[in-house]
Amino acid sequence: MRALIGLAAVLAAGSAAAQQPAVPPGMQWLYGSGEGGATGIQAYHAFRDYVVAAARHRPRNSVVLADGATLAAPRFVPCGRRPLAVVLDVDETALQNLGYEFDDATHPGRSYDQQRWNSWEQTGANAVLPIPGAVTALQAVRRAGVTVIFNSNRLAAYAEASEAALNGAGLGPARHGATLWLQNDVAPGSGKDPRRAAISARYCVIAMAGDQLGDFSDLFNVRGVAVAERRRLATTGAVANLWGNGWFVLSNPVYGTGLRGNVDDVFPADRRWPAAQGGNR
Amino acid sequence: MRALIGLAAVLAAGSAAAQQPAVPPGMQWLYGSGEGGATGIQAYHAFRDYVVAAARHRPRNSVVLADGATLAAPRFVPCGRRPLAVVLDVDETALQNLGYEFDDATHPGRSYDQQRWNSWEQTGANAVLPIPGAVTALQAVRRAGVTVIFNSNRLAAYAEASEAALNGAGLGPARHGATLWLQNDVAPGSGKDPRRAAISARYCVIAMAGDQLGDFSDLFNVRGVAVAERRRLATTGAVANLWGNGWFVLSNPVYGTGLRGNVDDVFPADRRWPAAQGGNR
Repeated sequence: MRALIGLAAVLAAGSAAAQQPAVPPGMQWLYGSGEGGATGIQAYHAFRDYVVAAARHRPRNSVVLADGATLAAPRFVPCGRRPLAVVLDVDETALQNLGYEFDDATHPGRSYDQQRWNSWEQTGANAVLPIPGAVTALQAVRRAGVTVIFNSNRLAAYAEASEAALNGAGLGPARHGATLWLQNDVAPGSGKDPRRAAISARYCVIAMAGDQLGDFSDLFNVRGVAVAERRRLATTGAVANLWGNGWFVLSNPVYGTGLRGNVDDVFPADRRWPAAQGGNR
Repeated sequence: MRALIGLAAVLAAGSAAAQQPAVPPGMQWLYGSGEGGATGIQAYHAFRDYVVAAARHRPRNSVVLADGATLAAPRFVPCGRRPLAVVLDVDETALQNLGYEFDDATHPGRSYDQQRWNSWEQTGANAVLPIPGAVTALQAVRRAGVTVIFNSNRLAAYAEASEAALNGAGLGPARHGATLWLQNDVAPGSGKDPRRAAISARYCVIAMAGDQLGDFSDLFNVRGVAVAERRRLATTGAVANLWGNGWFVLSNPVYGTGLRGNVDDVFPADRRWPAAQGGNR
């Protein structure tokens, strides 16, 4: 579907530039396109079908990695007789942060500001929408008797506003201390393993959803892991089999730990073109 | 997973800028990240499981829209007793065009050039990789007795090179005139409906995969459809139910018909922030 693309891009860039800042391509795709919306629905269809089926046969193990497990040799927390739950990230997994990204798109060149994000957490609850497909999927999951738990790096200090954002979008009930777990609830910092362990002590977690690898295991975020090695960890071996099969990934090309790497990191050295570099043909 | 992102982005941008052109975020995510790789695997797991199950019960209707159907009231081509097939797009659906995108990333600011793309079709067969998850999924589909057909807007004139790209990546057999359909094979232009109709005359198409809405129906690409309306068409009603359920979408924030729209197109007017615009907080 390559042929018409160049012209469309030129026209879009031209008309946008005349009036207002151009919207970054990742935002156009994720928040504006039918393609991006379809990926959300597809992921949540798979999530829903998997969870409803798993709730029937009651798996022996959760999908949360056990303490001491590795990505190369994953082991999972046994479920015992604990009640069933799913664990989801919030931002760009359950919620589209449209107001915040609108503000970002209309201030090009500005760098990330934690205070601005904090202000968004506190005051943005009405400027969000659910990810397409999320509301009906979570309804079906709850009807199957499975508790929906959100595990977010939003701050516990602003819990009420984050509850309002989720509940207002139709994704709730989200209640801090029960179905909404936030940064600093269990341990300081953005690592989510301590919260996953605490949730796993109370529930059998049969599925997880997130837009960042850290929504599944902090082992992906070990310091110093090169870009290509991190991709390899996520796409080979036993971990590869989990995608769509207990671990559900939402597409987010707008921000996050996936947006790293220079040309040599991103493009394999043996997949370059033209063969004689320097000249274009 | 918002907290560490700002710092990472600043560090990445700083170090890349010192040495070589920065890689656009969409490319970092799609070609370089574990997150992007995981979405490919997840989509192909769903595709494989759906196709293997559908091949067992032999559906009455294909997933190709019938002549005269609309997106609001889709009707599908009846299967009769025709053999089973799946239809996939090629670029960024089955293949990662790494060499071409490397060349693009290292020439920032350059606009799309159809001649350069044509040259890539002719000479780039060795500078690709399969989308993660595609090879094993297509093997499973073929084992289930289902023919794998590629429907691409690459040009029929360069069919041999496109066959070599697909076969070399382990995605074949792709043979022009049988399992590889190209632009100008049935009708001129980039619309894929005429080729889908011709394939449907020979096969019962039980699933389709693509990264562009035009890989499913040309009705999405009717001239003059506004960005928000196009997203609505893809994410509501009967069409919404098809994602992951006969129609399988691959994430592509790098190029294509989804990368359109200015701020007013992409961000709903009732989801803006801060409430008092102009000032930040």
